[in-house]
Amino acid sequence: MEYLTSERVAVLGAAGAIGSNLTQIILTLRISNNVVMFDPYAPGLEGAAEEMYHCSFPGATITWTTDLAEALEGTSYVVTSGGAPRREGMTREDLRRDNCKIAKELGEHIRKYAPDLKFLIVIFNPADITGLTALVHSGLPPSRVTTLAALDSTRLQTALAQKFGVPQDKVTGCRTYGGHGEKMAVFKSTIRIDGKPLTEYLEEGLLPREEWEAVQEHVRNGGARIIKLRGRSSFQSPAHHSALMLKSVIDGSEYPWPCGAYIAEGEFAGVMMAADTTLTRNGVVVRVPEGDPEDMALLRDSYEHLIQLRNQTIEDGLLPPLKEWPRYNRHLGVPPR
Amino acid sequence: MEYLTSERVAVLGAAGAIGSNLTQIILTLRISNNVVMFDPYAPGLEGAAEEMYHCSFPGATITWTTDLAEALEGTSYVVTSGGAPRREGMTREDLRRDNCKIAKELGEHIRKYAPDLKFLIVIFNPADITGLTALVHSGLPPSRVTTLAALDSTRLQTALAQKFGVPQDKVTGCRTYGGHGEKMAVFKSTIRIDGKPLTEYLEEGLLPREEWEAVQEHVRNGGARIIKLRGRSSFQSPAHHSALMLKSVIDGSEYPWPCGAYIAEGEFAGVMMAADTTLTRNGVVVRVPEGDPEDMALLRDSYEHLIQLRNQTIEDGLLPPLKEWPRYNRHLGVPPR
Repeated sequence: MEYLTSERVAVLGAAGAIGSNLTQIILTLRISNNVVMFDPYAPGLEGAAEEMYHCSFPGATITWTTDLAEALEGTSYVVTSGGAPRREGMTREDLRRDNCKIAKELGEHIRKYAPDLKFLIVIFNPADITGLTALVHSGLPPSRVTTLAALDSTRLQTALAQKFGVPQDKVTGCRTYGGHGEKMAVFKSTIRIDGKPLTEYLEEGLLPREEWEAVQEHVRNGGARIIKLRGRSSFQSPAHHSALMLKSVIDGSEYPWPCGAYIAEGEFAGVMMAADTTLTRNGVVVRVPEGDPEDMALLRDSYEHLIQLRNQTIEDGLLPPLKEWPRYNRHLGVPPR
Repeated sequence: MEYLTSERVAVLGAAGAIGSNLTQIILTLRISNNVVMFDPYAPGLEGAAEEMYHCSFPGATITWTTDLAEALEGTSYVVTSGGAPRREGMTREDLRRDNCKIAKELGEHIRKYAPDLKFLIVIFNPADITGLTALVHSGLPPSRVTTLAALDSTRLQTALAQKFGVPQDKVTGCRTYGGHGEKMAVFKSTIRIDGKPLTEYLEEGLLPREEWEAVQEHVRNGGARIIKLRGRSSFQSPAHHSALMLKSVIDGSEYPWPCGAYIAEGEFAGVMMAADTTLTRNGVVVRVPEGDPEDMALLRDSYEHLIQLRNQTIEDGLLPPLKEWPRYNRHLGVPPR
């Protein structure tokens, strides 16, 4: 079994639960045989690296470093879960300020040490804002930066499969868009349960309105629920999806879930958010999601929330004022608002 | 990407670090699309199962239960990490009594609920003795029971690669045999560093005797070192190897590392230990390891230690007296000692 590439992948936060799992999946799926693990916490990082050595992946070169510049130089792909983790009782937004500092530093390091980076995947929360912060400071084209956004959609798929008692992949078209947070927009218009549109279940009263709202709420609390059950935030599913996203940009394979992407123009411009995306060897291609009026109202609401978070991050001095964005990143225009 | 089988795999201890990682790797490598997760700890188990659902493995049926009988009925393959974990400062042997109780119960349940089980892989420590205990009580043929034994060999490969400054897979022929514990037999006679036999390095004084002994000691403490570095016992590498072992017995692919197997006759009869093994669709084929006189002396020493542990387990009432073994398991004779 050959590796898909020998170009180097840097996993940032590799001592953590997501990062160490992600490193393992990258090697298990033979995505790259060349992985550098970065984390500021040396003992845990060495321990995680030793575990990888003890797997004895054939032909793999696995290194580890606590020096971010060293991790980035010569690296083609970066996947980062290297933020502070979310703890029980915290909202994703509570993490914003601390993690945007980390994202800003990452962007600045990428600009300096890996200006030709092929792709950056940001996992740490709130990923829309940390991803945006890294994008603006990195100088990378927006097509080369994405965030993990799939879990809300797969949690929706899971919840509906459990509610209707059908196998999970009989529930299709699950999409959540906008922010990955309490204000996510859980779309309904494309969902089918064993072939039958969810909207028909709603119209026929087979799925009472309040039960659908409960499902949406369940999905919004999906992350918190894992923390409650496992005593730690989810790590296997984020690692899994991030690895598949990376695989997609390396080999062009289909990645079927929404990704976070920068919206350059139109009604939803000036933020990164979960959208209708395609991952390709050239990066992420983004389209504004389409849904019924109710879905779109949810998306507008989520967008407004993202604008607020973005503006707070500007006020914190972690993102530059909008009019200066093109000076920080020549691939960006001045957002309309 | 098709799954290798639709026959059910039970992962026992699936709420734990090894078990949840193992479940993920079984699905990621498309080994089986039919996995039941068992653990006595329901919230952690549900959380781990939810993480798998959020991965959205196509076509997978993943269930979870806290009822061991339910996990075993209709199951073809069992991989179990469902023992108590080793904590800092404990030797593997400290765990013996508690985990042999669990292994005895597992064997009895297999006899009752899954007498035609195709393969059982025991991971939890001390795996040689827990594996033996499960084997005797299960009534399964010895060819259908194995234990994880690779990590000592891959730790040896890792340590030598680091010492000689060569890529890991330039170090070949690393094999540790006998017990997976402080008394493991670290063989040297087949090791080559970048093609040159380790024995030549020793003879020529390029690797001083005491440095080789330090490497052996480093390997013996490999598990404890992970605990010290990561604050928890190793889980990614055991899950990785167990998944590859399972894959081997399902698709006949080569598994290149030693496995633990029951030795029915000859000098090393009456124990399970890491040996020269081949995994096939029909189970494990075992040969007594061969090495130079020094290697074989280490193996004899390790075997004596295993006999002691086995006899203590008989005294504890967790294994029957030797002469009763054929009554518990018709595939076993009375061990010669």
